[in-house]
Amino acid sequence: MKSIILFGHGARDQEWAQPLIRLQAVVCKRLPDTDVRLAFLEFMAPTLDLAIDSAVQAGADHVAVVPVFLAQGGHVKRDVPNIVEAARLRHPKVVFTLRPALGELDRVIEALAEGVILG
Amino acid sequence: MKSIILFGHGARDQEWAQPLIRLQAVVCKRLPDTDVRLAFLEFMAPTLDLAIDSAVQAGADHVAVVPVFLAQGGHVKRDVPNIVEAARLRHPKVVFTLRPALGELDRVIEALAEGVILG
Repeated sequence: MKSIILFGHGARDQEWAQPLIRLQAVVCKRLPDTDVRLAFLEFMAPTLDLAIDSAVQAGADHVAVVPVFLAQGGHVKRDVPNIVEAARLRHPKVVFTLRPALGELDRVIEALAEGVILG
Repeated sequence: MKSIILFGHGARDQEWAQPLIRLQAVVCKRLPDTDVRLAFLEFMAPTLDLAIDSAVQAGADHVAVVPVFLAQGGHVKRDVPNIVEAARLRHPKVVFTLRPALGELDRVIEALAEGVILG
């Protein structure tokens, strides 16, 4: 089983997670055979390492971590690779993939621009 | 003149601003008659109130503030309306529009989902 973990920053305000929950729902619908989970850097649960462990426990042999960040700052560049590296050591039989921040993708920049222009 | 201010969180890492700079370039190209500026909540310059004042000084009579955030947390829900309200008092002849966070838009959620699925 493949697992995709959508990893966001998190916030004190619970409403903050709504777009991530919507994103999870859209991805789940398009990839019905993939386990799609959320994880957060702070303020919200679960953490990324807990989400990885749960995915592996549920049978994932491939875990893709997708940072749902607009840009790569210190969190995405330093913290996330360390968390994924530690998970590799805990789960040596599982293949881990760490993807770039979604906001870096051309298709996302284009959609943001359309959002600015068209609302 | 209309001005659009793309307002992001900001980060210590200067590289963080790259996607916003790319976004600004795409919007500028599509709206050549609009003044398109960046502003930041913290760590980067200019602040939102400084960017608004500069836009007005440059001749803007309509300023649209677009929060380039994935989700509406405390910053977008509380801080930004207060900053825009203060700007309205400073510039009573200018029309201000405060837009929702870009990450809340369906087209952006769809593009993020495509990014998760296709990379």
